[in-house]
Amino acid sequence: MQNFSYYNPTRLVFGRGVETQVGSVVSEIVGPEAKVLVIYGGGSAKRSGLLDAVHASLEAAGIVVLEKGGVQPNPRMCFVRETVDWVRDQGVRAIIAVGGGSVIDTAKAVAVGVEYEGDCWDFFEGKAKVEKALPVFAVLTIPAAGSEQSTRCVITHHGTKTGIGTELIRPRAAFINPERFATLPAWQIGAGLVDMCSHIMERYFSKTDATEYVDGQCEAALRTIMASGLKVYNDPSDYDAWCQVGLAGSFAHNGYFGLGREEDWACHAIEHEISGWREEITHGAGLAVVIPAWMHYVSGFEPARFVQFAVNVMGVEPREDDAETIRLGIAKFAAWTQSVGMPGTLAALGAEDCPIEALARHCCRAGTVGHLKPLNVDDVAAILTGAAGNV
Amino acid sequence: MQNFSYYNPTRLVFGRGVETQVGSVVSEIVGPEAKVLVIYGGGSAKRSGLLDAVHASLEAAGIVVLEKGGVQPNPRMCFVRETVDWVRDQGVRAIIAVGGGSVIDTAKAVAVGVEYEGDCWDFFEGKAKVEKALPVFAVLTIPAAGSEQSTRCVITHHGTKTGIGTELIRPRAAFINPERFATLPAWQIGAGLVDMCSHIMERYFSKTDATEYVDGQCEAALRTIMASGLKVYNDPSDYDAWCQVGLAGSFAHNGYFGLGREEDWACHAIEHEISGWREEITHGAGLAVVIPAWMHYVSGFEPARFVQFAVNVMGVEPREDDAETIRLGIAKFAAWTQSVGMPGTLAALGAEDCPIEALARHCCRAGTVGHLKPLNVDDVAAILTGAAGNV
Repeated sequence: MQNFSYYNPTRLVFGRGVETQVGSVVSEIVGPEAKVLVIYGGGSAKRSGLLDAVHASLEAAGIVVLEKGGVQPNPRMCFVRETVDWVRDQGVRAIIAVGGGSVIDTAKAVAVGVEYEGDCWDFFEGKAKVEKALPVFAVLTIPAAGSEQSTRCVITHHGTKTGIGTELIRPRAAFINPERFATLPAWQIGAGLVDMCSHIMERYFSKTDATEYVDGQCEAALRTIMASGLKVYNDPSDYDAWCQVGLAGSFAHNGYFGLGREEDWACHAIEHEISGWREEITHGAGLAVVIPAWMHYVSGFEPARFVQFAVNVMGVEPREDDAETIRLGIAKFAAWTQSVGMPGTLAALGAEDCPIEALARHCCRAGTVGHLKPLNVDDVAAILTGAAGNV
Repeated sequence: MQNFSYYNPTRLVFGRGVETQVGSVVSEIVGPEAKVLVIYGGGSAKRSGLLDAVHASLEAAGIVVLEKGGVQPNPRMCFVRETVDWVRDQGVRAIIAVGGGSVIDTAKAVAVGVEYEGDCWDFFEGKAKVEKALPVFAVLTIPAAGSEQSTRCVITHHGTKTGIGTELIRPRAAFINPERFATLPAWQIGAGLVDMCSHIMERYFSKTDATEYVDGQCEAALRTIMASGLKVYNDPSDYDAWCQVGLAGSFAHNGYFGLGREEDWACHAIEHEISGWREEITHGAGLAVVIPAWMHYVSGFEPARFVQFAVNVMGVEPREDDAETIRLGIAKFAAWTQSVGMPGTLAALGAEDCPIEALARHCCRAGTVGHLKPLNVDDVAAILTGAAGNV
């Protein structure tokens, strides 16, 4: 195991009706009578009444609320800039995201942008280091991205998805009411489930040895997401199953499952190329296509971990031939993603025309991606070619 | 699942040599050139060089260090009072524990005592509420109590062990270097392993339904503690195995494994009577005797959870008769505690002469104990009688 320092001060407020606590928690942290900016996406947060509930809770605590809606999936830098320009001189003391990963990531980018004199794309290009950020809060509308407890923020600019990571943008509090997930569309549920699995798998597929504790935690969490995930996909009114999914999805990306080890993140790097190239593509759906193709390709280089995955996560009875155990594990994982409505090939994803060579080159523009098997342009192209042919 | 609010801001600094980071982390939190009190127990922290390393790290960061050793196992109120009186007017800004649970709990009691004008036993008697505490830090010498990340503090006074719990005493940072565990005596290793299992089991044995996520996390953590625990018991120089045990033991008591459910804590309540009555008795050893007796007694009332424990934690092949599955699960757990040197009966614990009726009455002085099956005086007496006869 590697040395580590882990600090996760996000307060997790979880359960029925917790949106009524937003005002008291925010005012405790940023002070009473502060001005805050509430950011949201499309109309569903408004139609469901969640936005009104958050607004009411904040105002009951004496907080002044500015609002800005319209965040798109795969959120854009232009929206961030526009928002930063709008609030820069308004004395806002916190950014509150009411939405999923795209809204929370936008809130994070705005939180660092407001506290920076230059253009906040500088951070994403590595030209500047984040030194300051407004406090961020998240009221979750879909469990998927895990951004409500994470230090990460991914923004798209001119077709390039780029991430930054800093403790300064880890939300101060996350409010998760699983009742709110009952009206999610099936497609978003499935994509969210794959995304949260991927956050654990990017940490699980590691070369660092002596990680039995986190391995066991990862395996149990993945089994729970798959079992409870299938339940909520088939019956979105199942509150109890949503509790498991919501909890697992939130812990999936807060760093716990990666304690003391090298993480991989190749699948995210490859998928970001696809949904950066065609912004209508849902991140989780892209991952459903990339992950099995990545597993097929990389398991040839690091079989032991894929055998462990097949047996401990997918419940495969070990075969004499490791390659067969691995193949069954990948097939069971791919079958699960398809059982929650996700595509199995680039064609099913609507990306059969993606420029594989160009995406592979762009993916590796700063060098290899991934750690379990560092991937170069040829490797990434081979994985995307595999993704084209998956059944 | 129940609603919950979870907040765990303890920074966990983990791995080889992390004691050299104590000074920089403490000075970042309490400011440079502060005065702090370092508390420790017997001579082992001194002999091992750990105390000197912490001292050097603090002084390198410009911090002024006061020191007080001599904390006993099952730490006493008189030591807390003496220490509070000594440091009250010295302008100390933080308490740093170098030790195990007893030392950390003493540091927590001192941290609230210094900030209170009255006698800090008031908090333990419920006569006053903790409003303020000095920041507490913990440099761990034995993984067991989990106090380095917990909100709890247990102190003994006139033979009564009493606990308090408040977010204000959760350590700001915990430093865990598993290299330091290589010289622990076998008895302390075994007792520590049982103690950390118990912290998970007190949360796992719950009546709250729809807790699959935390159930899976608990079960995986218990399996890891048992497997890696046996390794370190048999070879205390096994750094890799200590990493698993150290990590599991620290998370065992920080609240994660109890998210969203009623917890039990009957075994702790009963054991505290035994080691409160005879202070030489090690808490973890007492638990090794109490837990199987408690399981035998309570499993008759709530069989389903004990079947789940037998199958998912102890690896028992389910039998047609649930009672048989349960019996095998308990037997395997008891056999494991004995494989790490722990006693199986009150006699083997050195407590065959304990006044069962009196301890049971004292245990239930404020009403029933436990939640899975609320236990009255007769129940506790029956469990202690069972503990007398365990093999």
